[in-house]
Amino acid sequence: METPMGYGSMRRKEDARFIRGRGTYVDDVTLPGMLYGAVLRSPFAHARIVSIDTKAAEAHPKVRAVITGAILDGLKLAWMPTLSYDTQAVLATDKVRFQGQEVAFVVAEDRYAARDALELIDVEYEPLPAVVDARRALDPDAPVIRDDKDGKTDNHIFDWSSGDKDATDRVFSEAEVVVTQDVLYPRVHPAPLETCGAIADFDKVTGKLTIWCNTQAPHAHRTVYAMVAGLPEHKIRIISPDIGGGFGNKVGIYPGYVCAVVGSIVTGRPVKWMEDRSENLMSTSFARDYHMRGEIAATRDGKIRAVRVSVIADHGAFNGTAQPTKFPAGFFHVFTGSYDLEAAHCAVTGVYTNKAPGGVAYACSFRVTEAAYLIERMVDVLAYELGTDPAALRMRNLLRPEQFPYPSPTGWEYDSGDYPRALALAMDIAGYDDLRAEQAAQRERWAAGEVGGTLMGVGISFFTEAVGAGPRKHMDILGLGMADGAELRVHPTGKAVLRISVQSQGQGHETTYAQIVAEELGISPDDIEVVHGDTDQTPFGLGTYGSRSTPVSGAATAVVARKVRERARIVAGAMLEVSPEDLEWEKGRWFVRGDPDQGRTITEIALAAHSSLELPEGVEGHLDATTVYNPPNLTFPFGAYICVVDVDPGTGRVKVRRFVAVDDCGVRINPMIVEGQVHGGLADGIGMALMELIAFDPDGNCLGASFMDYLLPTSMECPSWELGATVTPSPHHPIGAKGVGESATVGSPAAVVNAVLDALKPFGVRHADMPLTPAAVWRAIQGAPLRTDLAIG
Amino acid sequence: METPMGYGSMRRKEDARFIRGRGTYVDDVTLPGMLYGAVLRSPFAHARIVSIDTKAAEAHPKVRAVITGAILDGLKLAWMPTLSYDTQAVLATDKVRFQGQEVAFVVAEDRYAARDALELIDVEYEPLPAVVDARRALDPDAPVIRDDKDGKTDNHIFDWSSGDKDATDRVFSEAEVVVTQDVLYPRVHPAPLETCGAIADFDKVTGKLTIWCNTQAPHAHRTVYAMVAGLPEHKIRIISPDIGGGFGNKVGIYPGYVCAVVGSIVTGRPVKWMEDRSENLMSTSFARDYHMRGEIAATRDGKIRAVRVSVIADHGAFNGTAQPTKFPAGFFHVFTGSYDLEAAHCAVTGVYTNKAPGGVAYACSFRVTEAAYLIERMVDVLAYELGTDPAALRMRNLLRPEQFPYPSPTGWEYDSGDYPRALALAMDIAGYDDLRAEQAAQRERWAAGEVGGTLMGVGISFFTEAVGAGPRKHMDILGLGMADGAELRVHPTGKAVLRISVQSQGQGHETTYAQIVAEELGISPDDIEVVHGDTDQTPFGLGTYGSRSTPVSGAATAVVARKVRERARIVAGAMLEVSPEDLEWEKGRWFVRGDPDQGRTITEIALAAHSSLELPEGVEGHLDATTVYNPPNLTFPFGAYICVVDVDPGTGRVKVRRFVAVDDCGVRINPMIVEGQVHGGLADGIGMALMELIAFDPDGNCLGASFMDYLLPTSMECPSWELGATVTPSPHHPIGAKGVGESATVGSPAAVVNAVLDALKPFGVRHADMPLTPAAVWRAIQGAPLRTDLAIG
Repeated sequence: METPMGYGSMRRKEDARFIRGRGTYVDDVTLPGMLYGAVLRSPFAHARIVSIDTKAAEAHPKVRAVITGAILDGLKLAWMPTLSYDTQAVLATDKVRFQGQEVAFVVAEDRYAARDALELIDVEYEPLPAVVDARRALDPDAPVIRDDKDGKTDNHIFDWSSGDKDATDRVFSEAEVVVTQDVLYPRVHPAPLETCGAIADFDKVTGKLTIWCNTQAPHAHRTVYAMVAGLPEHKIRIISPDIGGGFGNKVGIYPGYVCAVVGSIVTGRPVKWMEDRSENLMSTSFARDYHMRGEIAATRDGKIRAVRVSVIADHGAFNGTAQPTKFPAGFFHVFTGSYDLEAAHCAVTGVYTNKAPGGVAYACSFRVTEAAYLIERMVDVLAYELGTDPAALRMRNLLRPEQFPYPSPTGWEYDSGDYPRALALAMDIAGYDDLRAEQAAQRERWAAGEVGGTLMGVGISFFTEAVGAGPRKHMDILGLGMADGAELRVHPTGKAVLRISVQSQGQGHETTYAQIVAEELGISPDDIEVVHGDTDQTPFGLGTYGSRSTPVSGAATAVVARKVRERARIVAGAMLEVSPEDLEWEKGRWFVRGDPDQGRTITEIALAAHSSLELPEGVEGHLDATTVYNPPNLTFPFGAYICVVDVDPGTGRVKVRRFVAVDDCGVRINPMIVEGQVHGGLADGIGMALMELIAFDPDGNCLGASFMDYLLPTSMECPSWELGATVTPSPHHPIGAKGVGESATVGSPAAVVNAVLDALKPFGVRHADMPLTPAAVWRAIQGAPLRTDLAIG
Repeated sequence: METPMGYGSMRRKEDARFIRGRGTYVDDVTLPGMLYGAVLRSPFAHARIVSIDTKAAEAHPKVRAVITGAILDGLKLAWMPTLSYDTQAVLATDKVRFQGQEVAFVVAEDRYAARDALELIDVEYEPLPAVVDARRALDPDAPVIRDDKDGKTDNHIFDWSSGDKDATDRVFSEAEVVVTQDVLYPRVHPAPLETCGAIADFDKVTGKLTIWCNTQAPHAHRTVYAMVAGLPEHKIRIISPDIGGGFGNKVGIYPGYVCAVVGSIVTGRPVKWMEDRSENLMSTSFARDYHMRGEIAATRDGKIRAVRVSVIADHGAFNGTAQPTKFPAGFFHVFTGSYDLEAAHCAVTGVYTNKAPGGVAYACSFRVTEAAYLIERMVDVLAYELGTDPAALRMRNLLRPEQFPYPSPTGWEYDSGDYPRALALAMDIAGYDDLRAEQAAQRERWAAGEVGGTLMGVGISFFTEAVGAGPRKHMDILGLGMADGAELRVHPTGKAVLRISVQSQGQGHETTYAQIVAEELGISPDDIEVVHGDTDQTPFGLGTYGSRSTPVSGAATAVVARKVRERARIVAGAMLEVSPEDLEWEKGRWFVRGDPDQGRTITEIALAAHSSLELPEGVEGHLDATTVYNPPNLTFPFGAYICVVDVDPGTGRVKVRRFVAVDDCGVRINPMIVEGQVHGGLADGIGMALMELIAFDPDGNCLGASFMDYLLPTSMECPSWELGATVTPSPHHPIGAKGVGESATVGSPAAVVNAVLDALKPFGVRHADMPLTPAAVWRAIQGAPLRTDLAIG
């Protein structure tokens, strides 16, 4: 594969170290004199702490410190640095509120001793009844979980709504057809390959605190530590090295991080804390857990007129450290999906339960995932009720190209799109009509009493995301605007270094961002070093999540490269002794208009900029630039997905036969990387649709705390993906890109579920909730209660 | 001591770690799997290499590589990355040209094994006659040292000159008085507390080369490695941690550094190389070694009319890796000192000798040290011949305040000064008239035959430096202009980080630069982190030498802070909803003109800049700035020094009784640090004047390769310094500072030597060369040849 000088598929620069085992993950870092920490966690979902006795643990010969909430309180570090308005004790002192909550922290000479010493800590608990079901949590007689908080007497957190309720109710009251469906998006987990961890190294002489941490948002962590924990911001360095997957799981600050910091302060030595898989699944930020009711008002011939949504959002015992303050922004504004409506209204009620805190986690784009799933499930329910083809129903209702920029009923402006073209392309790739013909023939045989074999289903999903947080008007975190910085230096020899605020968790930033600079300056991507993940080396920015890297930081990169190009123009003018206005640009070179032989490459200009060449008054001698980019709007990637499944009605087993995904994420910098992102997201969707679930028993015991219980799809469950693309550039983004990190995760679950339910249509099944395990499918076929066999809260 | 919010004496921020033993010097760094290197050096000053047999060394069980010039050649790394136009083999292959030249490099598991293995390398040498005396080197029959170089047949390097020869000769031909004096500035050594060293860590997977090195110029090193050795600039990281003194010794790249790099490339492991004291004294860049002839043309009543200077400059066997290309710029332009002349001319001839390469080393400000010493010695010789008081003679001839900016006879523009005021202040502090009266009385007793006791001498030196390299028009290095970058970020919580291109070797940058920002922004210096010494973290710049930090990088810091202040004005305008033009600044706060209660501090503005506050169109959301500062002119610090000595004519022993130093370095940011710099430089001057000498025997054997042989002054040789100051701001420097790093080193030797010779006046001694050891003084008194007893080349 040849390396392009700009956009195009090229091998990822970072893979040289990844595939040779030379990546540096947090757990690869060993500092001189480093100690190891371990967290003692609550075995109960809800219990009063009567006493904590740490004496035996402290007596362990290899233990250097045992930290409890009381000790944290003495250091004024008792409360979590958090992005949310909520408060959470780093280590519980009064009550534990979910199974796995952090109670104490042991620091020892090695990992084994730290774990051993946990068992020497004697905690006396007085168990309390647990609240697991979010709807039950609102009962007046439900046990109050957050009696710590402002004297709270119930489990209610907030009621938020968006849209015009009166207008929506009016349309519903006069509608020819109204369909209503309760839809659960169950609790799932991002389950990154690498679990969370940190090494804290506090130097008491210089006051410098260095934290190696696999966070998706190193700068936000630094600022939050400073704003909330009161540590001096200029003395904190967060180094986020190579990261084995994030998916939102690594946005927030976890108690273990703070404990590592305190451990280092207390012992004067570096302290490493790495969670194990069970801790990661049990205690770090979950996703979803939305109990949704959707309603569609439509005409009898299939014109959708209005959507009404109400949600009970299960936040677990705390609001999660990565919860932004304006929330759930994404859900509120894209719950109408990709459709042209008259009115819409949405209401969300947040509640506390005795489960681990949720968060923004798992490729949800601020809850867009739940919204996209609901509307796409609802459209299929409408098609089911109307007896129409779901593709035709969508085609009729999709926003038309001429409607863009489209002001949504809730006030956001979809930037660009040609939705019918994308759906048509997906149907073309899938051979939609042939599939339906095949299905009709199969159903005829089935209706005729032919037994055995599987039933095919065809599922469609058309999703619109709102990503690229964010415009100052739409969201902030603790008052921080969601801008991202980029800094580009061209060295004297013409090689360049780009420093960006966002942090890769494996997405290929080092390649993609180099390509953006290469495209703008005509320097080979191999000659551009991309630096990220170290607050001491990079400009401020809010981090990598919500598909915001390319929409925000990618834009910053293009802007900063263009600034360098304009600076190069001035230097080239001085070199050629002509006015910069008389120069024209072609890839990597400024030349004299009308005299193309008279020109200078970026490499030549770079040396001259650093040389003793006399530059015009006020022009500084370098070829660098910086920028901070705050997007004027979100970007709105979209896609049309078609899934074909074969369901065995005898066992309930679902086999995904084909998956067609047409994504439009605007301009594609490296199509190979885009396709890789889509591949991963499609697998996510199959996992969530068919097998993933963090379940709890009625006492709040987590039933998904290992990969034996929490099932993830493998290549065996995935078909060979069939991808297509349309390219509708975002008009406000400097290079027209929209971000693709979460698209397939957002869009694919509905396609799979719709396909399964399409297959089950002959059984009269209108809806069944994820995950559609064989047992769940079999029960749906039998007309059994349309819930899984596990207590899912 | 209270911490000021800007300029003023405050304790050094970096001292917290230095005085507690928590500094990190190169030799403190241990990387996982690190190997250790040792250099095999030539025992001969001049010899042909017949053969090198490394087999036995390679067979040593702990040796991992033995590197010779042949191996380097195979890697295309045979030649030194150099700032000079000269070429030098990293490891000699054909001939060795000075004692201590690098011949081979052993890489082993530990330092001891590496040293042991050096003795297993069998090098067969064929000794050649050595050339030690620079004047002898120009003889037609002298052995040719650099027969490697362009078929060279002699030892001549260059003839350079400055000034108007005809005009100067004309003045001399008609002058009433002409004095001529041969003056030697002997070879001395910077002798920093920490010797030179490096750790190279090459990652063959990523191609990244990290070099920990105690260099004064990390960015220049990176670029030179890239330009000369062909390593990709964006893949090189130079980390220059805490440094135990530089003084010019740590500007250049030494063969040991390149060998460490090659060692890491070859073994795939990090390689550390640290020289020992003997290697440092024998093989790293020396200073001075100027054979000078000075001539002054004057009127009989003491008006100096012209100066004529010729120099044979001994460069050793190579031009040194830190030799800039326009050289010796400083000498050429300040050899007329601080005086008002009609004409001046200077000619310098460079020659090769069989001695270690010289360089810009040792606080010489591009050879200003030699020039200042010569002119101040010459003025005293003139006073001696005219029988006038040296203070009065100087006062008569000093440039007058109204002559500034003063265009020197050689074309440089002295920026500002009030020289008579400084001299008058020094005389006042010294009680000059009383000293002369005391001396007269003493001499009367001596003339009357009273024996015993010491003879006092009073020596004056008035020096002008040209520092702050440099303006593009004056100098460059390999075509690189001598600009320096600064980058200032104000974090959301109002703490700041300043990243500067220059590198501290102990001067207190972390304090001084924080104070500059504090002065401009009203942030406490404690809340400003100063980052330096890491090319991955700091903007490009040429490094710390020639007293250029404050003149160039200090200016950059003030400029960048003012850029931040202006940006803060815009944000404050948006916060207060007024036009930025309606705001006024007082320390740390923008307020509405006429309504001082309506204002915002920098801390408040910092958070708002990063918030969702709407800013005017095109204004980016941050409070950062960058700059690259290229000074419009050099700065010209100056000073008047008076030294009082007591000489024992019986033993030749000199005791420095008092030392008065009045320095004018423009505005003083931290007077305590300025005084510390002066203290050190005065000790330097006493050392050079009285004891320091790198001597060679006629075969070129270095006789100063240990601190038993190379004598340095201690507190026992230093009086309690008496300091004074005048402040003449530099008109072109943003804060009027001039740089003081080398002032006392430049100015003090002449004061000490003049004082000793003043004491010896009764013996009719007009001149004697440094170092004025007891033996040298005693010989001078006896009328013995006015040279030291050692062969000094």
